[in-house]
Amino acid sequence: MTFSRRDLFARVPASWAALSAALSAQSTDEDYWRLLARQFPLESGLIYMNAANVCPASRPVLDRHLGLLRDFQANPSFQNRDKYAAMEERVRRKIAALLNVENNEIAMVRNTSEGSNTVVRGLDLKPGDEVLITSHNHPSNNDSWKVRAARDGIVVKAATVPVPATTTADLLNRISDAATSRTRVIAVTHVTNTAGLKFPVKEIAEIARKRGAWFHLDGAQSFGALDVDLRAIGCDSYASSMHKWPMGPLEAGILYVRQDRQKELWPSIVTAGWSDKIEGARKYEVFGQRDDPRLASLEAAMDFLALVGMKRIERRVQQITTALKQGFANSDALVMRTNIEPELAHGVVKVDLKNGRLKQAYDTLWSRDRLSIAMTASGDTAGLRFSPHIYNSMDEVERVVAAVKKLAA
Amino acid sequence: MTFSRRDLFARVPASWAALSAALSAQSTDEDYWRLLARQFPLESGLIYMNAANVCPASRPVLDRHLGLLRDFQANPSFQNRDKYAAMEERVRRKIAALLNVENNEIAMVRNTSEGSNTVVRGLDLKPGDEVLITSHNHPSNNDSWKVRAARDGIVVKAATVPVPATTTADLLNRISDAATSRTRVIAVTHVTNTAGLKFPVKEIAEIARKRGAWFHLDGAQSFGALDVDLRAIGCDSYASSMHKWPMGPLEAGILYVRQDRQKELWPSIVTAGWSDKIEGARKYEVFGQRDDPRLASLEAAMDFLALVGMKRIERRVQQITTALKQGFANSDALVMRTNIEPELAHGVVKVDLKNGRLKQAYDTLWSRDRLSIAMTASGDTAGLRFSPHIYNSMDEVERVVAAVKKLAA
Repeated sequence: MTFSRRDLFARVPASWAALSAALSAQSTDEDYWRLLARQFPLESGLIYMNAANVCPASRPVLDRHLGLLRDFQANPSFQNRDKYAAMEERVRRKIAALLNVENNEIAMVRNTSEGSNTVVRGLDLKPGDEVLITSHNHPSNNDSWKVRAARDGIVVKAATVPVPATTTADLLNRISDAATSRTRVIAVTHVTNTAGLKFPVKEIAEIARKRGAWFHLDGAQSFGALDVDLRAIGCDSYASSMHKWPMGPLEAGILYVRQDRQKELWPSIVTAGWSDKIEGARKYEVFGQRDDPRLASLEAAMDFLALVGMKRIERRVQQITTALKQGFANSDALVMRTNIEPELAHGVVKVDLKNGRLKQAYDTLWSRDRLSIAMTASGDTAGLRFSPHIYNSMDEVERVVAAVKKLAA
Repeated sequence: MTFSRRDLFARVPASWAALSAALSAQSTDEDYWRLLARQFPLESGLIYMNAANVCPASRPVLDRHLGLLRDFQANPSFQNRDKYAAMEERVRRKIAALLNVENNEIAMVRNTSEGSNTVVRGLDLKPGDEVLITSHNHPSNNDSWKVRAARDGIVVKAATVPVPATTTADLLNRISDAATSRTRVIAVTHVTNTAGLKFPVKEIAEIARKRGAWFHLDGAQSFGALDVDLRAIGCDSYASSMHKWPMGPLEAGILYVRQDRQKELWPSIVTAGWSDKIEGARKYEVFGQRDDPRLASLEAAMDFLALVGMKRIERRVQQITTALKQGFANSDALVMRTNIEPELAHGVVKVDLKNGRLKQAYDTLWSRDRLSIAMTASGDTAGLRFSPHIYNSMDEVERVVAAVKKLAA
């Protein structure tokens, strides 16, 4: 049985009822988000805007993980661990429902890097076969292909993409133009970690399908930040992490592999419990002994997303990043690296200082303002990177914009 | 700087001083082990003899892991996580010192399965090249090779090994006889999980070296149970887990790769931070975002082993398993699957019931005696599997032997 998307969002577990009621009782939007922020263990005074790297797990996730860990360590017998198989299948169902795919299409892996590398190494490719990436792919979907090229003689071609992007049509043309009759794989980052550039993935899937190429999508910056519908996108595989936007535990992630193409993908690891009869994408997660308490805690992460609702999360991330971008855009002292248009960007805001004092600004924002962000020192995405999430407030946005403008002056 | 083996065992951290003093003050051996057992969170009444599967982590390990996890989740900024690089290098040094190898030869992976599969997929092998395994290899060092054979056309040959074994010389002959001029890899389990069979690995390394073959060793049942010296053994690679005999956290393990052969092994995962300039075995652990608190907690696991001493742990495991074997061996109702001779077995004791009521015995030992063990239902290693560790007592051994004999009668 697959939960329908509607089911998932309707079924908030009984234990969440109090939180749900309290959230509903808030009179303004900002009150709602302020109460929600209190469900995270972030220390007071810290302005945390680095979701594109790691998010804090919510308290329900940590409580679930640590409660089960205590139980596991007190009694690691097979008998006491019998329960995990059903718990982990429940997690799989909720992840699949959230992404609008089948249970059999989801594997639970370590993180995006492991998921993407399973695809990179697991597809049969001959010398001369081409893999088309973009110039802004994350290394896990970029250098990984290049290492395979060095080993197996495949060819990696990168479509160059400007930052900020011009138009969706231009992005598509650049990818379409770089594809050839030898293109066997198109591998793209859904939303880039460097500048938040959002690719028109449905249209890219169309390009791949027409050529019979495998379309792999790196979803590290989209799962948990956007209301992602993989069936609608039409990709063949998708990898993401739980420790970023889904606000789950560390070292947990997912790999989606479209059912009718699973026969083309070899598993990365084979160990006890493996068999070529294993149903669906479960064959991509036969990894030996796992941290079952952590895997089971993914259910709390999925329930938390359901409690708020993915559409509401997507809108809130858009609202905060738009406020940041508007705040920065009217300054002559700053260079925007991220598109203003919502259809071309999500989650990440990258901005550079014209005065050249990038590193000083980064350090001062930490030491003086207790602002946690990321920084790219050079290249076409050089700048300060802000990736706020639902635990951030509009107050924080105002303070951050003012602080950055002052340092850029 | 590499710690010497002697340093590691001498340097008990200051925070361990109280425990160390209390242990020294115990007047008998059993008192010593009883106090040590109290450092584990096992629930009262449980007789836990399933170390070959999972060990509980010691309290110092769990305290360290959870303390750092709280700190990480309260402040996931890059600045607060700066400290992990040095902590993880300290862990690497201590693991390397324990195994008598260089820091540059140790990678921190998920578990034995990931370590072994890195070797299985990472060596360049041509169709027709042979991999020699034994009939008692664990699936991670067995089925994994067969899947590669199905994909790449290599040939897997298994040397048949009887259980219990006859002599060390016979084991060596069986491996030597199965090797051919096309043997490129010899892959063996140091101590088998099925019957505790211990292979003469130094002599097998000699066979491999003479043929120029890569010698891979699955150390899941030896690291933390035996005083393993990889330099003395002379293998080319060795994989093991932290959640078994080393009594560390879940989903942590090691891969040793001999420095002068690292150029022959490709990494399993390539992502941010990867470069072909990475020094030593660190290139086999560029896995994307890790659970740094857990990796750092491995230091407490290594310190715990040092506090007791690997030679003392090895002797204690030998003492308990010998008592179990002697208890079982004088019964006509039981069939021993494990060698009595210490040079041919370690850690695991497998025994079958002649009355055919194996499953009933397994279930009764759990429900009535609260004894956690494992069971193999059929085949040449069918039986009940006992894998006791340093948290077990000689009292428990007596009770277990009596209970099993009663059920076998």
